[in-house]
Amino acid sequence: MTFTIPTPTTLDAVPAAVEAELRAFFADAVPAAAQIAPVVGEAAELIRDFILQGGKRIRPVFAFAGWRCGTTSSGRGEGEERGGPDARDALRVCAALELVQACALIHDDIIDHSDTRRGHPTAHRAFESRHTGAGWAGDAGEHGVAAAILAGDFALAWADDLVHDHRPAVVSTSSTSGGTSSAGGGTRTPGERREHRPLPADVGATWAAMRTEVLGGQFLDIVNEAGGDDSTAAAYRVMEFKTAAYTVARPLELGARLAGAPEDLVTRLRSIGHDLGIAFQLRDDLLGVFGDPARTGKPSGDDLASGKRTALLAIALRRADESDPALGQHLRSFIGHPLSHDELAAARDIFVEVGAVAEVEKSIDELLRSALSSLDAADIGADIRTELAAVAHRVAHREA
Amino acid sequence: MTFTIPTPTTLDAVPAAVEAELRAFFADAVPAAAQIAPVVGEAAELIRDFILQGGKRIRPVFAFAGWRCGTTSSGRGEGEERGGPDARDALRVCAALELVQACALIHDDIIDHSDTRRGHPTAHRAFESRHTGAGWAGDAGEHGVAAAILAGDFALAWADDLVHDHRPAVVSTSSTSGGTSSAGGGTRTPGERREHRPLPADVGATWAAMRTEVLGGQFLDIVNEAGGDDSTAAAYRVMEFKTAAYTVARPLELGARLAGAPEDLVTRLRSIGHDLGIAFQLRDDLLGVFGDPARTGKPSGDDLASGKRTALLAIALRRADESDPALGQHLRSFIGHPLSHDELAAARDIFVEVGAVAEVEKSIDELLRSALSSLDAADIGADIRTELAAVAHRVAHREA
Repeated sequence: MTFTIPTPTTLDAVPAAVEAELRAFFADAVPAAAQIAPVVGEAAELIRDFILQGGKRIRPVFAFAGWRCGTTSSGRGEGEERGGPDARDALRVCAALELVQACALIHDDIIDHSDTRRGHPTAHRAFESRHTGAGWAGDAGEHGVAAAILAGDFALAWADDLVHDHRPAVVSTSSTSGGTSSAGGGTRTPGERREHRPLPADVGATWAAMRTEVLGGQFLDIVNEAGGDDSTAAAYRVMEFKTAAYTVARPLELGARLAGAPEDLVTRLRSIGHDLGIAFQLRDDLLGVFGDPARTGKPSGDDLASGKRTALLAIALRRADESDPALGQHLRSFIGHPLSHDELAAARDIFVEVGAVAEVEKSIDELLRSALSSLDAADIGADIRTELAAVAHRVAHREA
Repeated sequence: MTFTIPTPTTLDAVPAAVEAELRAFFADAVPAAAQIAPVVGEAAELIRDFILQGGKRIRPVFAFAGWRCGTTSSGRGEGEERGGPDARDALRVCAALELVQACALIHDDIIDHSDTRRGHPTAHRAFESRHTGAGWAGDAGEHGVAAAILAGDFALAWADDLVHDHRPAVVSTSSTSGGTSSAGGGTRTPGERREHRPLPADVGATWAAMRTEVLGGQFLDIVNEAGGDDSTAAAYRVMEFKTAAYTVARPLELGARLAGAPEDLVTRLRSIGHDLGIAFQLRDDLLGVFGDPARTGKPSGDDLASGKRTALLAIALRRADESDPALGQHLRSFIGHPLSHDELAAARDIFVEVGAVAEVEKSIDELLRSALSSLDAADIGADIRTELAAVAHRVAHREA
């Protein structure tokens, strides 16, 4: 079996290319894991299927966008280059981001006791079912959690392997000699000897910062939830690290640095990424209360029921408390437990009445405008500017 | 504050040097994490203290030994070099191994529901206590597990950062310019700009293989335990990946490759490492049933009580079943629940009577002899040969 990795010529083509890159990675990783034992190979397949079963590939899209911004910047001095010899490196970084995300989701689903993700069982539930189906000894739920903790660890370790251009359990003889060209897309057979492509130091430093940021943001999130900090400041702090940096700003930066973008463009892209990342999360907050389950794949009012400390909730509580403390208490009564149809409708009414929805929509608009205006002034190619603007609109106004 | 990292001139000096390297890493990582929020900085401190509170540093000792084998090999053509410009790189890899181990221990302790480690609370119990002490909302135990899952993820991500010579959340401007010399030990101020030292490709490939192996071995372990596979073959398979490769063979290989050792020496060291690694685990099995709690820091008969599927247990069960099926059933009755003093004594008697202890002691002796004989024939310096032989004896015959 060989893998043809297409070089995306538009951002819309990035998800398919990243999925091809991921399939190629797992075509090495699954047999490597299976060499330890067949059940380990099956775990690797479960991780692969978890990743490939869905997702918007938003981080890869921004990373590849960053790379195209970098390659088309006049500051880089190489003009409108695209699909050149390092497009494959960019796709590798994009795919590695999806492996980090797999770890984040698998571990978050354990932490949140989630049963489903994108209409499929979460990893710990899948491992639990296998335990039950096989009639194994001990507590199936605990086994599911244990296996999923390790599955998340695999994904995190493999993310680093992929970004640094290593494959797990390649027999550890030198992988530097021989080597086929990995120029712009191309065809590869699993296990074939490749030229090793080390990650530039500044890209590695960005990668390091990003992983600490997302883990730190997630850690802060669970502490805020436990400590009952429902302030807007706390919600924004979590958004900044768990979402804005991790989902948009650092991916843009990774791609741009990989392309050798000048420092002022990198700084600009990070600022654009921050704005779009906050807008993305605010939209997520709105969808978490008002979203159509048929489109979001999540139950109606899921964020409220799960007690998620979103900025939207923080703003609504603040505004309700200010206008009428009883209303604030009423809104609090809807947090953290399953809601009936009528309760959800009542909660939604409060979000609208106190002006929280309008305030969040206004913030999204301002953030989008700020990002677009900075994008307009960026020294990047015309095509990527247009495409990135379209992605920015989608991120801010998506319905799923 | 500055950190003086001593260059170890003997293997006995490796633990202190690795601890200094880890302190220097955390002197960057703690403030970086605290920039996200003070509680994240506190989590980083907890991880640091967890690592520094104890441990034999066995993986760093073998990694540094491998590096010294490589630097003193005539095949490398550089003679008896030691403490040269890349000793600091070797220490960095050694310290990164302790971060991987921190992730493994923190996550294993969740999986095994362990309350203490080295006489201190395990990470999830420590986070649970903080929750209880602060009077936070929700289930303290679940919060502790959630926080410890993330703490393990931090350690795993930081291991990769350190091995690739990145620091988390260093402001992601290029870290390649400026840079002070990192020649053999030396003094460093946290956050100072350093010359980036990329990991050689073959070392990175070994690192990748090692992480997949230890995670795969651990995964296989929990599946064997759930599936009730108490065969000797299953126990050896887990030992091979979870212990031998991860604890001895791959660390030796990492060090040797870092020193540019010739391929035949690498192969030899991996084989020596396999033998010593299995011997190490077999000794661990014996200590898990017969060890002195005052020396091992673990309760008497801990492995039996926890239902661990060790090779020792597999051998004892096989031998008991062969000699007298009723004895096998009797032995099985001691597995997986707390044991009284008399029950533990009865179980120990069976291990001795059926000849399992003698068989395992014999295996340890054979493995040690095989390793020492291969070490004798290795093209390495006289000092490191003598020191490594002493470590081999200690590993095989330790009492804690």
